[in-house]
Parts: sequence; C-alpha cells; structure tokens
Amino acid sequence: MTQPLRLGIAGLGTVGVGVVRIVRKQAALLEARTGRPLTISAVSARTKGQDRGISLSGYDWEDDAVALARRDDVDLFVELIGGEAGVAKEACEAALKAGKDVVTANKAMLAIHGQELAELAEAEGRVIRYEAAVAGGIPVIKTLMEGLAGNEITRVMGVMNGSCNYILTRMESSGKTYQEIFAEADGLGFLEADPQLDVGGIDAAHKLAILSSIAFGSRVDFDGIQLEGIERVSIEDIRAAADMGYKIKLLGVTQKTGRGLEQRMQPCLVPETSPLGQLEGGTNMVVIEGDAVGQIVLRGAGAGEGPTASAVMADVCDIAKGVRGPVFGQAAASLQASTAAQSQTPAPYYLRMALVDKPGALAKIATVLGEAGVSIYRMRQYEHESADAPVLIVTHKTTPAAMREALGKMDATGVLAGAPVALRIEEV
Amino acid sequence: MTQPLRLGIAGLGTVGVGVVRIVRKQAALLEARTGRPLTISAVSARTKGQDRGISLSGYDWEDDAVALARRDDVDLFVELIGGEAGVAKEACEAALKAGKDVVTANKAMLAIHGQELAELAEAEGRVIRYEAAVAGGIPVIKTLMEGLAGNEITRVMGVMNGSCNYILTRMESSGKTYQEIFAEADGLGFLEADPQLDVGGIDAAHKLAILSSIAFGSRVDFDGIQLEGIERVSIEDIRAAADMGYKIKLLGVTQKTGRGLEQRMQPCLVPETSPLGQLEGGTNMVVIEGDAVGQIVLRGAGAGEGPTASAVMADVCDIAKGVRGPVFGQAAASLQASTAAQSQTPAPYYLRMALVDKPGALAKIATVLGEAGVSIYRMRQYEHESADAPVLIVTHKTTPAAMREALGKMDATGVLAGAPVALRIEEV
Repeated sequence: MTQPLRLGIAGLGTVGVGVVRIVRKQAALLEARTGRPLTISAVSARTKGQDRGISLSGYDWEDDAVALARRDDVDLFVELIGGEAGVAKEACEAALKAGKDVVTANKAMLAIHGQELAELAEAEGRVIRYEAAVAGGIPVIKTLMEGLAGNEITRVMGVMNGSCNYILTRMESSGKTYQEIFAEADGLGFLEADPQLDVGGIDAAHKLAILSSIAFGSRVDFDGIQLEGIERVSIEDIRAAADMGYKIKLLGVTQKTGRGLEQRMQPCLVPETSPLGQLEGGTNMVVIEGDAVGQIVLRGAGAGEGPTASAVMADVCDIAKGVRGPVFGQAAASLQASTAAQSQTPAPYYLRMALVDKPGALAKIATVLGEAGVSIYRMRQYEHESADAPVLIVTHKTTPAAMREALGKMDATGVLAGAPVALRIEEV
Repeated sequence: MTQPLRLGIAGLGTVGVGVVRIVRKQAALLEARTGRPLTISAVSARTKGQDRGISLSGYDWEDDAVALARRDDVDLFVELIGGEAGVAKEACEAALKAGKDVVTANKAMLAIHGQELAELAEAEGRVIRYEAAVAGGIPVIKTLMEGLAGNEITRVMGVMNGSCNYILTRMESSGKTYQEIFAEADGLGFLEADPQLDVGGIDAAHKLAILSSIAFGSRVDFDGIQLEGIERVSIEDIRAAADMGYKIKLLGVTQKTGRGLEQRMQPCLVPETSPLGQLEGGTNMVVIEGDAVGQIVLRGAGAGEGPTASAVMADVCDIAKGVRGPVFGQAAASLQASTAAQSQTPAPYYLRMALVDKPGALAKIATVLGEAGVSIYRMRQYEHESADAPVLIVTHKTTPAAMREALGKMDATGVLAGAPVALRIEEV
C-alpha cells in the first residue's frame, strides 16, 4: 500500500483550488491517515493562464479533461467541472473506461445520469464517489450509505441550498421583500450564474434525488420530484408564519409510501423551535430517520471552498484506503425504478387569505374546508384598516388532495379578496 | 464476495438483542448493501435461560465469551459485554489472536486499553471498529475518521451522556434540585448501575478520550482528562445562567494547543441559542471543527437499543464490505503519546457569589478580579430580602490561571457569604 494514489483534477474553480491546497498542505496527515502518499499528476481547466492564487507549476496541464481522465499516470479522476452533461460527463466516462475511479462534486450529472454512470462504473469494476455533491462539507452520503447501513430509512429531509435559506432568513430579519433580498444575494455573488438553479429549487432537488436513491435503493429520479422554488414566498407569509410559531424553509423531503416514492422540494413551514427551524443563513441541514436509529440531524456549511474540498478529500482518502462499493449503495442493476408518487401524505397546512369584510365570509370558508374534510386547528383574523380581512388558518393533518379540493371550491364562495396561499407544515 | 460474514455475538443485553433483531429483520437489505449474507453462528451471555424477547434457538450458545471469540465458524466477534477489562477484553484479544475482526460498543475498554488493543489488532492484521462506543446512533467515529479525513481537526466538543443532559434539562424545566432529579432519573432506570459513571462524567470522558485520539493522532489518554461531573450543579446556577442567556451542559472539549492536548469534561455554560444550548433531554450532540470544513454538528439518540444497534451494524456492514484500516485512524505505532495540558485556553467565565450586604463589598470583589487581570463583561446584582446579596458576573475572556488566582484571593476580602461558583463559558 505504499504506492502513491495519483490524482488528475479537472476543474480549477473554488473547489478544485481547495482540493489542490489540501493535498499540498496536509500531505503528511493524509499519508498517515490513508497509509499512502497522495500526489497530483495533472490538472485541467478551461483557461490556462488565469491566476488562481496557487502555483500549479508542479503538475502537468491538460487542456482537455477527457485526455486528463485517460492519462496513464492518473489513478483517480477528480471531476470538478460541473454541468449535467458535456465535458464533465464525457471525462467521467472516459476515466471509468480507462480503469480509473472517479470522485465528483457534480450533483446535476448524478441526479440526471446517475443510473447510467453507476452501471458503467460497476461494469468496469470502478467506483464513483460524490460526497461533495450533497450538502457541501456535511458527510451526508457517508452517513446515509455507511453510517446508517443497518437501518431501513423512513424519511430524509433537508435544507440543502444555502442561498435559498439565506434569502428566506434575510427576508425575515430585514422585513424586506423577496425581490429586494434576491437582488442583495445576487450582488453578493451568493447565487449561481443561472439563479433559477438556486431559487427555483433545482440545485436542491438534484441533491434530494441522489439522497433518495441511496436511502430507498431506487434509481435516481429527478423528474419524479414535486418541485417548487421560493419565488412565491412573500414577506407577508414569512411574518404570518412567524406569528404562528413557524419558519418557512425550502425543504426537501423524500419518503417511501405505499404508493411509491414521494419526493418533494418546496417551501414548507417547520416549527421555529426545531433544528430545521433554527437554521439560519447559508448553513445546510439534513435530517435522516431510520427504523433503528430514530432521527439523526447533520448540520454544516453547504458550500464554499473549504467545506466542499473537505468532502472531496473524504472520498479521495477512502479510495486511497481501498474502500470500494456500488455507486448508490447497492448494485446499480438492483436499484428499483421508482414509482413517482404525487404526495398523499397527510400534513397540517398553513393557509393565508384575505376575505372581503362582510358578515358570513369566514363561515363560507369554514364550510368549504369542512366539506372537503379539512378541519381547522388554529385560526387568526387580524385587525385591519383595509377593506379586506387577513385570515390565517392552521389545519389539522389533511391530505394534499383534500386541501386542493378545498382551495378549488374557495374561489366560488365569492368572499376571497385574492388568491389564498397554502403551504404544507412538515412535521419534523 | 458471496461468502457470508458469520457473527459471534457476546453480550445479550439491550444492544445485543437489538443487533440480533436487525440481522434477522433486515437480512435482505443488509445483503443488498454489503454484497454478502450476514449470519449469526453463535451467541453468548452470562445467563442462558433468561427471556430476552427473541428466540435464540437458531444459534449455538457459548457460556464462555472467549470460547465464542475463538470459534472456527465466527468471522467477526461482536463484543457487547461491557466493562473496562475482564472477560470483554480477554474475549476481544482472543478473537484478534484467532484472526477475527472485532466490533465493540465498549467505550471504557477502548478509553483505558485502546492503545494496547490497537497494537494487537494491527499486529494481527485485524480491525477493531467501535462506532457504538461514542454517542450511540450518531455516526461520529465515521464522520471524524473518514468523513473529515481531509481536515486538520481543531476542536471536538460534545454532550455525550444523555442521562446528565436529562438531569440538567429536567432541573431547569421543573425547578427541582439536583438531588430530586437524580432520584427521579434513577427511578426511571436512566442511570448506570454505578451512577457515578454518568453523573461523575466518567462515561462521557471515556468517549472524549476516544474522539481525542482519532482527532489528533494521539494515544488515548483517559487520565489526561480534566474531569468534573454534574453533582455540584445547583438549581440556582441553572436559573442564574438562564437569566444571563446560557444553558449549563456537561460538555466535553478536546483541542490541541501549543502546550499539549487539552481534554476537558466539565459543566460549562453555552449560549442558549446555540445548537448545544438547545439540546434537551437524553439526546447527544457532537460538534467537530476542522480547518477546511469549519463546523459540523451531529445530533441524535445517544443510547438505547435501536440507536446503539444501528451503530454496531454500521461497523458490521463495513467489515462485510471489506473496509479495513487502523483502529484509531492512523497506525497505532504512529500515535503520539499526548502531553496532557491543564487548560490554559482563555474563555469567558460565569461567576455566582453571595456577598455580605455592606458598603464596598462589590468594590472589593471587582478589585480582586481586576488585580488578577480578569475584566468584567456583564454584572447583575439582584434584589434580595436575605442578608446576602446575590451577584452574577460574566467576565471577558480570561485564562483559567487568572480565574483561579482571583478566586483564591476573594476569600481574603471577607465579603463573601459563601463559596463562589465559577463555570467556564465555552464559545461554540
């Protein structure tokens, strides 16, 4: 085991540079922990000349990531290019076919092409590891796949996009609107080049698809996720939720039900006193529930050079130590094609509406709810100077179908002064 | 890899029974995840006839754990007997010498004899895994040893004894004294047969010694821990701390300093809004800080059949998959003998004292503090009907030595109506 493990690193953005830094700074520690030296043979990125704050002169340069992946002096290909397909995927495939293991931080690629890549890796007898793809520095893949291997997983939940959580918590602390804080976050460089990846929930949904596969032995099914971003979360809802003891989070939830795999990524209310409710700013949190372990909560930085490079290095070290295993925790061929289920899991709901201020308005709403089988747990009508009466309702547990039915019929009552807002309250 | 992994389980208390249950209930899942069947060849416990709520008729019975450890049809010896030495250690040694790997939940054995056992295991080419020894179901060993392998660890902290945390949080919620809640916890069966293991902090210190070794590449050094239990924590201090925005926790902290390894297990104040401050009841929490990852927080059940068996099974599955490695994360021979350092790390302190109600009393205390170089950050004197004035002080960061000096000189002022209480405030 004294042969060095020779890395080829493709992609020299923040994370790639972070990985180079750790390999260099912690050489002795990494060798003590893995039992062999870790070396870098070659690196690759889109532009060669750029100042990245570190010297790369000790490493060969490849313009082409695919050529890097195939080099004879590379044992392990580290893909930090990003992007669902294109050169990132081509290079990973080239590496696997050339008999090299792969470490990647590429959540989009795994969420969309994970099954295909896993089958290729396993056919070639290689491994793909991707701790950095989900929740940055938090070792959630390792926890789910290895640390809780004795459990039947019952639910996985998480706040896995720091930018969305930053926006939501900043809205609450500042009282500003979504649009104002979005602009602020964008100005601070907190958002992806395509901000829809963040605020549309896509990035977080990529991560959820990966966790689902590991948790439930199913094929990654990004398209099966009920997806809604945070664009429609208003400052009024954040205030009203707080008034009722809740926080609004972009929450991913995956659970196996009798009808199939339920994967949701949507704004939800969680109790303000829960670990998820107390999560502020860019921090991530993943909650895993298993039949034996009960509930495990993991919290840490979800992005950034150090945390993400830390996750990449965990995978590199495992591979250096000879740890092998199927990509999603079970042989790719054995993963089940999941039946995507529209959520039918009952939950309490938060309802905010403005009613025309006429006698009997609230009675009509209550009647519609009652007829749909939705019962009211708490209700508040606020003092108001405007013509419309702001009303908040927290329901008892009800099915999404019943809630949809009630919402559908409310319009016909003629007492709504605007479209009502309904958000699920996740029990955590 | 289709050879089954054959277990021999010694110790059939709660955890042992939990392990048998999981192996039986999740046979298909475990085989899918590890790539091979897990079977139980034989079991052993002190008394044979006892009803344990499960049938053991499918397994051979051994009265002697050492004989079980040596059986030809056992590949992996699972030690759940407990106790620092005696039959638990003898059986583990016998297993290693007979070429079997060991999984154990025995924190006392590892904290005291870990170095010796690691050397034996590594000489024999075997592994010892012990996820269940620290923080129950939380995969903290795996996180520290593998998930954060790319990090230089800077500090590890944790609330790792659920019974102590139960007592402290119950004292606060009920307003009852330590003695009352201790009796209540004991009556509920929450405490070890020797309660000193819990309330004296010994059990938690065993866990801290293990985490220290992994985090810092040092030999386990239980005797190097500054150890204080929760017996002296009064309801007055819990109330006063709450009034200043803090909670009192039995907190283990290990960090490497210029002077050596600092390991402390003692009642500390933490901000009530921090994850540690919000931890209630029997739940455990471990906070790990690394140079790349920043801060990772792990939270979950620290004890009980399911959580502890979950941790045992994580180790069993890893071994089934062929994961190998040194016991404390680096070759036992390379672990440094740590220089145990009396804590000199500066921290703010909480001081509670009763002063005789005379003009100039507070001035004398303030003078003593100032002369020792301890400066006051916040101070409160409460209304009082008694002759003595209750005074609370939160200091700026100061060294333990300066605090000791100040406390030493306070007595001579003649204004103290009783012994002052000083508790460290850990910055989390």
